[in-house]
Amino acid sequence: MNLILTLRILGALLIYLAGTLLTALPFSLYYQDGAAVSFLLSALTTASCGGVLFFFCRSRKELSLREGFAVVSFGWALFALFGALPYIYSGAIPSPLDAVFETMSGFTTTGSTILTNIEALPKSLLFWRALTHWLGGMGIIVLSLAILPMLGVGGMQLFKAEVPGPTADRLKPRIQDTAKLLWGVYLLLTALETLLLMLGGMSFFDALCHSFATLATGGFSTRNASVAAYNSAYIDWVIVLFMFLAGVNFTLHLQALRGKLNTFFSNEELRFYSWITFGAIGLVMIFNLTSGTYTQLTDNLRYSSFQVVSILTTTGFGTADYELWPVIAQYLIIILMFIGGCAGSTGGGIKVARVLLLLKHAQVQIFRLIHPRAVRLVKLGKRPVDNEVLAGVLGFFALYIGVFIIASLLLAASGMDLISGGAAAVACLSNIGPGLGSIGPVDNFAHVPAFGKTVLIICMLMGRLELFTVLVLFFPSFWRK
Amino acid sequence: MNLILTLRILGALLIYLAGTLLTALPFSLYYQDGAAVSFLLSALTTASCGGVLFFFCRSRKELSLREGFAVVSFGWALFALFGALPYIYSGAIPSPLDAVFETMSGFTTTGSTILTNIEALPKSLLFWRALTHWLGGMGIIVLSLAILPMLGVGGMQLFKAEVPGPTADRLKPRIQDTAKLLWGVYLLLTALETLLLMLGGMSFFDALCHSFATLATGGFSTRNASVAAYNSAYIDWVIVLFMFLAGVNFTLHLQALRGKLNTFFSNEELRFYSWITFGAIGLVMIFNLTSGTYTQLTDNLRYSSFQVVSILTTTGFGTADYELWPVIAQYLIIILMFIGGCAGSTGGGIKVARVLLLLKHAQVQIFRLIHPRAVRLVKLGKRPVDNEVLAGVLGFFALYIGVFIIASLLLAASGMDLISGGAAAVACLSNIGPGLGSIGPVDNFAHVPAFGKTVLIICMLMGRLELFTVLVLFFPSFWRK
Repeated sequence: MNLILTLRILGALLIYLAGTLLTALPFSLYYQDGAAVSFLLSALTTASCGGVLFFFCRSRKELSLREGFAVVSFGWALFALFGALPYIYSGAIPSPLDAVFETMSGFTTTGSTILTNIEALPKSLLFWRALTHWLGGMGIIVLSLAILPMLGVGGMQLFKAEVPGPTADRLKPRIQDTAKLLWGVYLLLTALETLLLMLGGMSFFDALCHSFATLATGGFSTRNASVAAYNSAYIDWVIVLFMFLAGVNFTLHLQALRGKLNTFFSNEELRFYSWITFGAIGLVMIFNLTSGTYTQLTDNLRYSSFQVVSILTTTGFGTADYELWPVIAQYLIIILMFIGGCAGSTGGGIKVARVLLLLKHAQVQIFRLIHPRAVRLVKLGKRPVDNEVLAGVLGFFALYIGVFIIASLLLAASGMDLISGGAAAVACLSNIGPGLGSIGPVDNFAHVPAFGKTVLIICMLMGRLELFTVLVLFFPSFWRK
Repeated sequence: MNLILTLRILGALLIYLAGTLLTALPFSLYYQDGAAVSFLLSALTTASCGGVLFFFCRSRKELSLREGFAVVSFGWALFALFGALPYIYSGAIPSPLDAVFETMSGFTTTGSTILTNIEALPKSLLFWRALTHWLGGMGIIVLSLAILPMLGVGGMQLFKAEVPGPTADRLKPRIQDTAKLLWGVYLLLTALETLLLMLGGMSFFDALCHSFATLATGGFSTRNASVAAYNSAYIDWVIVLFMFLAGVNFTLHLQALRGKLNTFFSNEELRFYSWITFGAIGLVMIFNLTSGTYTQLTDNLRYSSFQVVSILTTTGFGTADYELWPVIAQYLIIILMFIGGCAGSTGGGIKVARVLLLLKHAQVQIFRLIHPRAVRLVKLGKRPVDNEVLAGVLGFFALYIGVFIIASLLLAASGMDLISGGAAAVACLSNIGPGLGSIGPVDNFAHVPAFGKTVLIICMLMGRLELFTVLVLFFPSFWRK
């Protein structure tokens, strides 16, 4: 581990964060919400700390794999710490732990909130809250499509963005090229959704904030009642569409924009993701129909679709309280919480591709029992999946369940009940937002004890960084020369 | 698939079952409980059906792998069907579904019961109920140590019993030799526990039935209040000891009896199993201490130890209602439910060895991220674990979670609540017995709707036969020539 180089890069990242903090200033001045000074102070604090790190830690070495892990994990953690400053300085969230929880929830695109009255916040803070989602989403796209595949985390090498261009050997230029193209798509989709939401009657401010939260599969709303506050079928459907798109591998969007629609529609993960989406909507509608939750079929379609897509893509926006649905529909929602979006999307969870590979692995295992001498490999698309990748995927799954169990146990220890504790663990580990029980879709995380909040902050970070990236830091051999 | 040969062997198994049904006769005659005719009729029905199959299906072929799967799965299912006859004929359990549930629960050594008043049953039926456990346990030992390793199910090849003797190439003599030795150990431990329980004041009948249920990690008691009915610390501790022993690989017991104590104590799975046991007891005691569940430390030790060992070994006997314990202790109990006993024991669940291998696999995955060029293999004991075995173990885990999810979903559909449905799924899949909620340690399964009972019957069978053995039957290619 080259600590000096790591600190230098972290310093640069903090200077960049200070710059983004300043983007909230115009909103503060326009709405006269009195938070301008807090943002200035936050930017100043962040830039100073970043500057010190950047200028005093000088290293001529190239970035290697190990520093990659450290930069990603500590970078995200520092963003959550320094990004919390405006909440604290303005007094909007007096408790530092709560402020860090809210910011980590933002940057990890989780969307769990400790706020009990969201609308009471100054507008510029609401903008910052949505922006943490959007910036986190940008980070995740590059992380999952360019950085993690190189680090070889949990089988992610399978989803390396194949962006044409000069195939340089060194990490930096390659990542930058990939990032620019993917961010272009991200920006385009955000602009498009903002426009469509404004056409539905939303203010520019609300439309922008909700688009930020949608494309990042975050889920922070500017309203207490989340998207339900607008009570508009048009707005619901626009958000359903963009949540679905945000849950798709962004490399595929790039391909589609380049006219390669065939590549887009023939992608096996996307097909499976669509099957899960439509299958789950169908099932939830049947359950809601038999239990008579909605009198109108159009209502059933609208609310069932919204909640299924919101949870599967790990966005977490709400238009209906699914805790009032029949138990089996709630159960389905829990399963979707674990699955999550596609690899290379902004969605969290285990990821559709991994679930698909797990199923295929199990199928091949059974096939080999019947035909012990036959050779059959697990394939994704038309290509056989490397054994190492498969081992990574299986290891990730085991680890995900393991971390979920330990987190739930710690939440139970903090005093939460069985359902709420387990739901909070998966809601944060899969970066969804709401869960069940005391942290259900119409509740918030304010009442969770401090110890529980700390556990959940770690869950959000671990889940977002595909577990391994954070876990390697706890191995002594990682720190040795 | 050679159907004729399969049917012939199933016929032979039924004739054997008819013989075991007759062993309940002496009890019926001695206690004058009026069930003798039911047993005679049951034996007659079973023997007739078995005889027809055995004598009309003639095949000169040798048993191959595929017939192995069919014989094991259908054999267990037929035992549950025909073994239910005494309950039905005697009128003790009028509903055939309930009777099959109870018998499947017996032969799979699960111990979930639909009986609301156990003590009202004729003595001979209580004996038969305990005997189904004991016979199931015998089956499992041979299955997991001799048959499944040959079939290559879920990494079980790792736990093949290495019994010295003539290494014949053909399946039959090898299995028979292994079986005889292991059953010797099983019989010895059963006799020993019966004796020790009688010394504690139990009647011969009760001691025998409880020993049957202990060694098989079954959990059927002859008393409504389970082991709590005896209210004796001595009896509790004897049962704790034998539950623990029943959860150990029986090959190890064989080694220990041959004086190879070093092999016994240095076994890595046994060590990990002991760590889990003592660790969980320690934690549960701390939770119960802080919440003030027990005023006496000896009570805390006694009840915590009993429940931890009872659940981890998947026995399911009860001396305390763990639903009155703090939430975190209940959570720990749920985790233990998934883990289960050692491979090659009569315990169910995922198995300690698989959990150990999963942890090691995850550790190696993380290690390889830090040292991409280093070679490190997963080892068990001192031997590196074959990649194929590891793939089997990982596939098994994924499948276990998958089946658990589907079963819980179906139970939610049958009308059970979230906690009870999930707990029932794992209680039956891991062959434990009691769960949480409406099927907790002081409840029973009588109220579960018919659809739910059917799902649970399938869970018990699948869990007991290491999932794969049953699942292969659903593949069309299994049935093709």
